[in-house]
Amino acid sequence: MMKNITDVELVECEESRFVKLKQMNYVQDGVAKRWELAQVHDSVAILIYHKDRDSFVVVKQFRPPIYLKNRDGYTYELCAGIIDKECSLEQIAIEEVEEECGFRVSSLERITSFFSAVGFAGAQQTLYYVEVSDKNKVSNGGGIENESIEVIYLPTSKAKEFIFDETKGKTPGIMFGFSWWFEYKS
Amino acid sequence: MMKNITDVELVECEESRFVKLKQMNYVQDGVAKRWELAQVHDSVAILIYHKDRDSFVVVKQFRPPIYLKNRDGYTYELCAGIIDKECSLEQIAIEEVEEECGFRVSSLERITSFFSAVGFAGAQQTLYYVEVSDKNKVSNGGGIENESIEVIYLPTSKAKEFIFDETKGKTPGIMFGFSWWFEYKS
Repeated sequence: MMKNITDVELVECEESRFVKLKQMNYVQDGVAKRWELAQVHDSVAILIYHKDRDSFVVVKQFRPPIYLKNRDGYTYELCAGIIDKECSLEQIAIEEVEEECGFRVSSLERITSFFSAVGFAGAQQTLYYVEVSDKNKVSNGGGIENESIEVIYLPTSKAKEFIFDETKGKTPGIMFGFSWWFEYKS
Repeated sequence: MMKNITDVELVECEESRFVKLKQMNYVQDGVAKRWELAQVHDSVAILIYHKDRDSFVVVKQFRPPIYLKNRDGYTYELCAGIIDKECSLEQIAIEEVEEECGFRVSSLERITSFFSAVGFAGAQQTLYYVEVSDKNKVSNGGGIENESIEVIYLPTSKAKEFIFDETKGKTPGIMFGFSWWFEYKS
Protein backbone atom coordinates (compact mmCIF):
# COMPACT_ATOMS: atom_id res chain seq x y z
CA MET A 1 0.00 0.00 0.00
CA MET A 2 2.97 2.35 -0.42
CA LYS A 3 1.53 5.71 -1.35
CA ASN A 4 3.02 8.10 -3.81
CA ILE A 5 3.77 11.36 -2.00
CA THR A 6 4.59 14.42 -4.12
CA ASP A 7 4.38 18.21 -4.10
CA VAL A 8 5.24 18.55 -0.42
CA GLU A 9 5.36 22.08 0.99
CA LEU A 10 5.49 23.37 4.54
CA VAL A 11 3.77 26.71 5.03
CA GLU A 12 2.31 28.85 7.77
CA CYS A 13 -0.95 27.41 9.00
CA GLU A 14 -3.79 29.36 7.39
CA GLU A 15 -6.49 28.42 9.85
CA SER A 16 -6.01 25.75 12.49
CA ARG A 17 -8.87 23.32 12.96
CA PHE A 18 -7.19 20.45 14.79
CA VAL A 19 -4.15 21.91 16.55
CA LYS A 20 -4.77 25.07 18.57
CA LEU A 21 -1.77 27.06 19.72
CA LYS A 22 -2.33 28.56 23.17
CA GLN A 23 -0.39 30.18 25.97
CA MET A 24 -0.78 29.38 29.63
CA ASN A 25 0.07 32.17 32.04
CA TYR A 26 0.52 31.21 35.67
CA VAL A 27 2.27 32.11 38.88
CA GLN A 28 4.55 29.49 40.43
CA ASP A 29 5.70 30.33 43.96
CA GLY A 30 5.19 34.01 43.32
CA VAL A 31 6.99 34.04 39.95
CA ALA A 32 4.92 34.86 36.85
CA LYS A 33 5.56 32.42 33.99
CA ARG A 34 4.25 31.74 30.50
CA TRP A 35 4.20 28.47 28.56
CA GLU A 36 3.29 27.76 24.93
CA LEU A 37 1.24 24.70 24.22
CA ALA A 38 -0.71 22.99 21.47
CA GLN A 39 -4.23 21.98 22.42
CA VAL A 40 -5.08 18.60 20.93
CA HIS A 41 -7.54 15.82 21.52
CA ASP A 42 -6.96 13.04 24.02
CA SER A 43 -7.04 9.55 22.56
CA VAL A 44 -7.46 5.83 23.06
CA ALA A 45 -5.16 3.09 21.77
CA ILE A 46 -5.73 -0.65 21.62
CA LEU A 47 -3.18 -3.46 21.67
CA ILE A 48 -4.81 -6.18 19.55
CA TYR A 49 -3.57 -9.77 19.76
CA HIS A 50 -4.75 -12.23 17.11
CA LYS A 51 -4.86 -15.69 18.66
CA ASP A 52 -5.07 -17.77 15.46
CA ARG A 53 -2.10 -15.99 13.95
CA ASP A 54 -0.15 -15.48 17.22
CA SER A 55 0.34 -11.93 15.97
CA PHE A 56 -0.21 -8.35 17.01
CA VAL A 57 -2.53 -6.40 14.75
CA VAL A 58 -1.04 -2.96 14.14
CA VAL A 59 -1.67 -0.12 11.74
CA LYS A 60 0.73 1.37 9.26
CA GLN A 61 -0.05 4.85 8.05
CA PHE A 62 1.41 7.98 6.52
CA ARG A 63 2.12 10.69 9.07
CA PRO A 64 3.02 14.10 7.60
CA PRO A 65 5.09 15.26 10.62
CA ILE A 66 7.20 12.10 10.37
CA TYR A 67 7.71 12.62 6.63
CA LEU A 68 9.37 15.94 7.48
CA LYS A 69 11.80 14.09 9.76
CA ASN A 70 12.81 11.07 7.72
CA ARG A 71 11.35 11.55 4.18
CA ASP A 72 9.52 8.26 4.58
CA GLY A 73 6.63 9.18 6.82
CA TYR A 74 5.21 5.74 7.51
CA THR A 75 4.72 4.66 11.09
CA TYR A 76 3.68 1.47 12.83
CA GLU A 77 1.24 2.19 15.62
CA LEU A 78 -1.35 0.64 17.84
CA CYS A 79 -4.90 0.96 16.58
CA ALA A 80 -6.01 4.31 18.00
CA GLY A 81 -8.44 7.17 17.76
CA ILE A 82 -9.05 10.61 19.15
CA ILE A 83 -11.78 11.31 21.69
CA ASP A 84 -14.05 13.65 19.79
CA LYS A 85 -17.52 12.49 20.70
CA GLU A 86 -19.75 11.99 23.70
CA CYS A 87 -19.52 8.32 24.51
CA SER A 88 -17.36 6.18 26.77
CA LEU A 89 -13.68 5.76 26.02
CA GLU A 90 -14.18 2.01 25.76
CA GLN A 91 -16.93 2.50 23.18
CA ILE A 92 -14.71 4.78 21.09
CA ALA A 93 -11.93 2.20 21.33
CA ILE A 94 -14.29 -0.62 20.26
CA GLU A 95 -15.32 1.41 17.20
CA GLU A 96 -11.69 2.06 16.25
CA VAL A 97 -10.87 -1.64 16.39
CA GLU A 98 -13.56 -2.26 13.78
CA GLU A 99 -13.01 0.85 11.61
CA GLU A 100 -9.25 0.60 11.44
CA CYS A 101 -8.65 -3.13 11.72
CA GLY A 102 -11.94 -4.81 10.80
CA PHE A 103 -12.55 -6.75 14.01
CA ARG A 104 -15.86 -6.59 15.87
CA VAL A 105 -15.42 -6.95 19.63
CA SER A 106 -17.75 -6.30 22.53
CA SER A 107 -15.43 -5.41 25.38
CA LEU A 108 -11.82 -4.52 26.12
CA GLU A 109 -9.38 -4.84 28.98
CA ARG A 110 -8.18 -1.47 30.25
CA ILE A 111 -4.41 -1.46 30.81
CA THR A 112 -3.56 2.07 31.98
CA SER A 113 -3.24 5.66 30.78
CA PHE A 114 -0.36 8.06 30.23
CA PHE A 115 0.51 11.44 28.76
CA SER A 116 2.41 12.06 25.56
CA ALA A 117 4.20 15.22 24.49
CA VAL A 118 4.14 16.49 28.08
CA GLY A 119 6.29 19.50 27.24
CA PHE A 120 4.08 21.10 24.63
CA ALA A 121 0.71 19.33 24.41
CA GLY A 122 0.00 16.85 27.17
CA ALA A 123 -2.44 14.62 25.33
CA GLN A 124 -3.71 11.78 27.50
CA GLN A 125 -3.93 8.33 25.96
CA THR A 126 -5.84 5.45 27.53
CA LEU A 127 -4.54 2.03 26.58
CA TYR A 128 -6.70 -1.08 26.11
CA TYR A 129 -6.07 -4.71 25.23
CA VAL A 130 -8.19 -7.16 23.29
CA GLU A 131 -7.72 -10.65 21.89
CA VAL A 132 -9.36 -11.45 18.57
CA SER A 133 -9.63 -14.42 16.23
CA ASP A 134 -10.80 -14.95 12.66
CA LYS A 135 -14.35 -15.15 14.04
CA ASN A 136 -14.22 -11.44 14.90
CA LYS A 137 -13.32 -10.38 11.38
CA VAL A 138 -16.09 -8.35 9.70
CA SER A 139 -14.22 -6.19 7.19
CA ASN A 140 -10.75 -5.32 5.96
CA GLY A 141 -10.54 -2.21 8.14
CA GLY A 142 -8.46 0.59 6.71
CA GLY A 143 -10.18 3.50 8.41
CA ILE A 144 -12.90 5.81 7.22
CA GLU A 145 -13.06 8.76 4.84
CA ASN A 146 -9.65 10.18 4.14
CA GLU A 147 -7.69 7.71 6.25
CA SER A 148 -5.17 5.50 4.47
CA ILE A 149 -4.48 2.78 6.97
CA GLU A 150 -2.84 -0.54 6.25
CA VAL A 151 -3.49 -3.37 8.68
CA ILE A 152 -0.32 -5.31 9.53
CA TYR A 153 -0.04 -8.66 11.30
CA LEU A 154 3.20 -8.77 13.25
CA PRO A 155 4.03 -12.24 14.63
CA THR A 156 4.85 -12.09 18.34
CA SER A 157 8.04 -14.00 17.53
CA LYS A 158 9.27 -10.94 15.60
CA ALA A 159 7.97 -8.28 17.96
CA LYS A 160 11.01 -7.90 20.21
CA GLU A 161 13.26 -7.43 17.19
CA PHE A 162 10.73 -4.96 15.76
CA ILE A 163 10.90 -2.77 18.88
CA PHE A 164 14.56 -1.98 18.14
CA ASP A 165 14.28 -1.74 14.33
CA GLU A 166 14.71 1.97 13.80
CA THR A 167 14.03 1.72 10.07
CA LYS A 168 10.39 1.36 11.11
CA GLY A 169 9.01 4.57 12.63
CA LYS A 170 7.03 3.84 15.74
CA THR A 171 5.64 5.26 18.95
CA PRO A 172 6.66 4.54 22.56
CA GLY A 173 3.06 3.41 23.09
CA ILE A 174 3.44 0.41 20.78
CA MET A 175 6.82 -0.38 22.35
CA PHE A 176 5.37 -0.32 25.84
CA GLY A 177 2.30 -2.29 24.70
CA PHE A 178 4.41 -5.13 23.31
CA SER A 179 6.61 -5.18 26.42
CA TRP A 180 3.49 -5.34 28.60
CA TRP A 181 2.13 -8.30 26.61
CA PHE A 182 5.36 -10.27 26.90
CA GLU A 183 5.40 -9.74 30.65
CA TYR A 184 1.74 -10.31 31.47
CA LYS A 185 0.10 -12.24 28.63
CA SER A 186 2.63 -14.50 26.92
CA MET B 1 9.05 20.47 46.50
CA MET B 2 5.34 20.93 45.79
CA LYS B 3 4.98 24.27 44.09
CA ASN B 4 2.22 26.70 44.67
CA ILE B 5 0.45 27.33 41.35
CA THR B 6 -1.96 30.27 41.14
CA ASP B 7 -3.45 32.76 38.67
CA VAL B 8 -3.72 30.27 35.83
CA GLU B 9 -5.13 31.56 32.56
CA LEU B 10 -5.20 30.07 29.09
CA VAL B 11 -5.05 32.63 26.31
CA GLU B 12 -4.25 32.88 22.62
CA CYS B 13 -0.52 32.61 22.05
CA GLU B 14 0.87 36.09 21.55
CA GLU B 15 4.08 35.15 19.83
CA SER B 16 5.26 31.57 19.63
CA ARG B 17 8.93 30.97 20.34
CA PHE B 18 9.02 27.24 21.06
CA VAL B 19 6.00 25.71 19.34
CA LYS B 20 5.51 26.71 15.70
CA LEU B 21 2.19 25.93 14.08
CA LYS B 22 2.61 24.92 10.42
CA GLN B 23 0.66 23.34 7.63
CA MET B 24 1.99 20.65 5.32
CA ASN B 25 0.42 20.52 1.88
CA TYR B 26 1.05 17.41 -0.18
CA VAL B 27 -0.34 15.17 -2.87
CA GLN B 28 -0.94 11.53 -1.99
CA ASP B 29 -1.73 9.32 -4.98
CA GLY B 30 -3.02 12.28 -6.91
CA VAL B 31 -5.17 13.66 -4.09
CA ALA B 32 -4.25 17.06 -2.63
CA LYS B 33 -4.21 17.05 1.17
CA ARG B 34 -3.32 19.39 4.03
CA TRP B 35 -2.19 18.58 7.54
CA GLU B 36 -1.71 20.84 10.56
CA LEU B 37 1.32 20.26 12.72
CA ALA B 38 3.32 21.76 15.54
CA GLN B 39 7.04 22.06 14.87
CA VAL B 40 8.98 21.21 17.99
CA HIS B 41 12.50 20.15 18.91
CA ASP B 42 13.63 16.54 18.90
CA SER B 43 14.98 15.29 22.22
CA VAL B 44 17.05 12.79 24.14
CA ALA B 45 16.01 10.86 27.25
CA ILE B 46 18.12 8.83 29.64
CA LEU B 47 17.11 5.91 31.82
CA ILE B 48 19.37 6.24 34.88
CA TYR B 49 19.89 3.28 37.20
CA HIS B 50 21.54 3.91 40.55
CA LYS B 51 23.42 0.77 41.58
CA ASP B 52 23.97 1.57 45.27
CA ARG B 53 20.31 2.37 45.79
CA ASP B 54 18.91 -0.22 43.34
CA SER B 55 16.71 2.61 42.10
CA PHE B 56 15.81 4.46 38.93
CA VAL B 57 16.64 8.15 39.00
CA VAL B 58 13.72 10.07 37.52
CA VAL B 59 12.63 13.69 37.41
CA LYS B 60 9.42 15.17 38.72
CA GLN B 61 8.39 18.48 37.28
CA PHE B 62 5.47 20.81 36.72
CA ARG B 63 4.07 20.60 33.18
CA PRO B 64 1.57 23.31 32.28
CA PRO B 65 -0.27 21.21 29.60
CA ILE B 66 -0.79 18.45 32.18
CA TYR B 67 -2.10 20.93 34.73
CA LEU B 68 -4.86 21.77 32.27
CA LYS B 69 -5.81 18.08 32.12
CA ASN B 70 -5.74 17.02 35.76
CA ARG B 71 -5.27 20.22 37.87
CA ASP B 72 -2.15 18.67 39.36
CA GLY B 73 0.38 19.12 36.60
CA TYR B 74 3.24 17.09 38.02
CA THR B 75 4.78 14.34 35.94
CA TYR B 76 7.38 11.66 36.49
CA GLU B 77 9.69 11.40 33.51
CA LEU B 78 13.06 10.15 32.41
CA CYS B 79 15.83 12.70 32.55
CA ALA B 80 15.58 14.40 29.14
CA GLY B 81 16.44 17.44 27.09
CA ILE B 82 15.70 19.01 23.75
CA ILE B 83 18.23 19.02 20.94
CA ASP B 84 18.89 22.70 20.49
CA LYS B 85 22.61 22.91 19.97
CA GLU B 86 25.31 21.66 17.65
CA CYS B 87 26.85 18.71 19.39
CA SER B 88 26.28 14.97 19.44
CA LEU B 89 23.07 13.57 20.89
CA GLU B 90 25.12 11.58 23.38
CA GLN B 91 26.90 14.73 24.54
CA ILE B 92 23.57 16.53 25.04
CA ALA B 93 22.29 13.54 26.99
CA ILE B 94 25.42 13.45 29.18
CA GLU B 95 24.92 17.15 30.00
CA GLU B 96 21.28 16.57 30.94
CA VAL B 97 22.21 13.77 33.33
CA GLU B 98 24.40 16.22 35.22
CA GLU B 99 22.18 19.33 34.96
CA GLU B 100 18.93 17.63 35.89
CA CYS B 101 20.09 14.82 38.16
CA GLY B 102 23.56 15.79 39.35
CA PHE B 103 25.52 12.78 38.08
CA ARG B 104 28.67 13.15 36.02
CA VAL B 105 29.09 10.33 33.49
CA SER B 106 31.38 9.91 30.50
CA SER B 107 29.40 7.64 28.19
CA LEU B 108 25.95 6.17 27.69
CA GLU B 109 24.43 3.07 26.14
CA ARG B 110 22.12 3.90 23.25
CA ILE B 111 18.88 1.89 23.46
CA THR B 112 16.79 3.02 20.47
CA SER B 113 14.71 5.94 19.15
CA PHE B 114 11.02 6.54 18.52
CA PHE B 115 8.54 9.25 17.61
CA SER B 116 6.04 10.86 19.96
CA ALA B 117 2.89 12.75 19.03
CA VAL B 118 3.01 11.29 15.51
CA GLY B 119 -0.34 12.81 14.61
CA PHE B 120 0.47 16.46 15.19
CA ALA B 121 4.17 16.94 15.91
CA GLY B 122 6.34 13.92 15.29
CA ALA B 123 9.16 14.73 17.67
CA GLN B 124 11.90 12.11 17.63
CA GLN B 125 13.34 11.00 20.95
CA THR B 126 16.56 9.00 21.28
CA LEU B 127 16.72 6.87 24.39
CA TYR B 128 19.92 6.13 26.36
CA TYR B 129 20.82 4.11 29.44
CA VAL B 130 23.41 4.72 32.10
CA GLU B 131 24.28 3.18 35.46
CA VAL B 132 25.52 5.50 38.19
CA SER B 133 26.65 5.22 41.79
CA ASP B 134 27.30 7.67 44.60
CA LYS B 135 30.77 8.20 43.10
CA ASN B 136 29.18 9.96 40.10
CA LYS B 137 27.33 12.50 42.23
CA VAL B 138 28.60 16.05 41.73
CA SER B 139 25.57 18.19 42.58
CA ASN B 140 21.92 18.03 43.52
CA GLY B 141 20.74 18.50 39.96
CA GLY B 142 17.45 20.31 39.57
CA GLY B 143 17.97 21.81 36.15
CA ILE B 144 19.16 25.24 35.12
CA GLU B 145 17.62 28.71 35.01
CA ASN B 146 13.86 28.54 35.19
CA GLU B 147 13.57 24.78 35.50
CA SER B 148 12.00 23.40 38.69
CA ILE B 149 13.00 19.78 38.66
CA GLU B 150 12.90 17.42 41.61
CA VAL B 151 15.13 14.35 41.47
CA ILE B 152 13.31 11.21 42.60
CA TYR B 153 14.83 7.82 43.47
CA LEU B 154 12.35 5.09 42.61
CA PRO B 155 13.36 1.64 43.93
CA THR B 156 13.21 -0.98 41.18
CA SER B 157 11.09 -3.08 43.56
CA LYS B 158 8.35 -0.43 43.25
CA ALA B 159 8.73 0.32 39.57
CA LYS B 160 6.26 -2.20 38.17
CA GLU B 161 3.55 -0.96 40.50
CA PHE B 162 4.47 2.62 39.57
CA ILE B 163 3.89 1.96 35.86
CA PHE B 164 0.19 1.35 36.52
CA ASP B 165 -0.32 4.03 39.19
CA GLU B 166 -2.41 6.56 37.31
CA THR B 167 -2.33 9.06 40.17
CA LYS B 168 1.22 9.75 38.99
CA GLY B 169 1.29 11.43 35.59
CA LYS B 170 3.89 9.86 33.35
CA THR B 171 5.04 9.32 29.80
CA PRO B 172 5.06 6.12 27.73
CA GLY B 173 8.82 6.63 27.43
CA ILE B 174 9.41 6.02 31.13
CA MET B 175 7.03 3.05 31.05
CA PHE B 176 8.89 1.50 28.12
CA GLY B 177 12.25 2.31 29.71
CA PHE B 178 11.42 0.48 32.93
CA SER B 179 10.02 -2.50 30.99
CA TRP B 180 13.20 -2.62 28.93
CA TRP B 181 15.37 -2.64 32.06
CA PHE B 182 13.43 -5.49 33.66
CA GLU B 183 13.79 -7.54 30.50
CA TYR B 184 17.41 -6.84 29.63
CA LYS B 185 19.22 -5.55 32.73
CA SER B 186 17.68 -7.00 35.87
